[in-house]
Amino acid sequence: MARTPEAGSDVHRERHREVLETAARLIREQGYEAASVQDIADACGLTKAGLYYYIRSKEDLLLEIMSYGMDIFEERVLLPVLAIADPVERLKACMQRNIHLVTEERSKEVTVILHEHETLTGAARQQINARKKRYVHFLEASFEEAMREGRIRRVEPRVAAFSFLGMVLWIYKWFRLDGKIPADRLAAEMQDLFFGGLEIAPPPTRRSSKAASRAPRGLPAKPAGRGVAL
Amino acid sequence: MARTPEAGSDVHRERHREVLETAARLIREQGYEAASVQDIADACGLTKAGLYYYIRSKEDLLLEIMSYGMDIFEERVLLPVLAIADPVERLKACMQRNIHLVTEERSKEVTVILHEHETLTGAARQQINARKKRYVHFLEASFEEAMREGRIRRVEPRVAAFSFLGMVLWIYKWFRLDGKIPADRLAAEMQDLFFGGLEIAPPPTRRSSKAASRAPRGLPAKPAGRGVAL
Repeated sequence: MARTPEAGSDVHRERHREVLETAARLIREQGYEAASVQDIADACGLTKAGLYYYIRSKEDLLLEIMSYGMDIFEERVLLPVLAIADPVERLKACMQRNIHLVTEERSKEVTVILHEHETLTGAARQQINARKKRYVHFLEASFEEAMREGRIRRVEPRVAAFSFLGMVLWIYKWFRLDGKIPADRLAAEMQDLFFGGLEIAPPPTRRSSKAASRAPRGLPAKPAGRGVAL
Repeated sequence: MARTPEAGSDVHRERHREVLETAARLIREQGYEAASVQDIADACGLTKAGLYYYIRSKEDLLLEIMSYGMDIFEERVLLPVLAIADPVERLKACMQRNIHLVTEERSKEVTVILHEHETLTGAARQQINARKKRYVHFLEASFEEAMREGRIRRVEPRVAAFSFLGMVLWIYKWFRLDGKIPADRLAAEMQDLFFGGLEIAPPPTRRSSKAASRAPRGLPAKPAGRGVAL
């Protein structure tokens, strides 16, 4: 019998991630309802009992996949752009990073699943939705800031935020890595399409300390308002 | 026992549409796998045997819902705009109509389901995908025409087409009819966001007969190329 890696060890964490990524692929292929715990165990090369070492239940597994997807998204897309002082440059960098996440990353199934499934209920659902809402609010706040600083023409921040998201998140439905448009070019074309018609002034060559101090230092703490399904 | 309306009659067709719309709502709420034929029959106020009077199988039901969704989409969005000679006005009208379809129409579940489910297989899947591809090709051809006529700046037609679709089709994931942005304003804001930055010349006040003859007279006959999942 194979030895189970000790909980908390690097090997255990890596194996846990593999389980989440494999399960995400299977759920994307078959659907959450259709993919049984036995199917997921088989795909992971585990017995059903072995799989239950990593997860507590099927819904718990879905929550774990989504939480892991949000971790990856925040780490690779959101956190690296928060420090960019100019709001338009911040939004452009964010778009580029998000496009790469949904086209190229080996973990893309884990993030795509965030937008495909409404199967979570209760507290688990609220937990994921709160993290999604922070992204929407970050985008809205950045569009508002860009208007205040005279960098873009007037738009409705909420419509701009969801248009940005729609363009970027719809990509996984049609984009093929072996298709005629490489991911780099897609990102450049989409940035131009979206921001080329919005910008009315170039970014300042040197930011004043006042403007720099206005740049967000972290995610908005309390996402307010109604439920948002991305 | 309730009398079954005669096949081919208006009452039968209306009842059939009701069955498709009710089933679409249930599938949207519960997921295709989770919604049983018994659940669907209950929601329609039919016995299981009664439901099988209208459908042959669960997969057949899904194909019927999707075909009906494509019928509604073509009737309310695509066909009314085909005759608009100016490509930018054609695309704007198409965006506005598509936004109203996904926000306000009583049949919106039937059209939303087209983009949520990849459950169809084989010939049924090909049939629906071919109809979706015609929409993509119509958009691409209209963007190409708008560039040729000097109406918009240069864009990659495929990226523009899928950006248009992403913005519009993502709406059902976040838009609430009772929210602070009415559907009319959403349509106007999104048209401005997308086309405000693309247009470089106003539409000609009177179209030449040559330009008018270039306007598409119908959908592209043979959608070519790889599978497209909207």
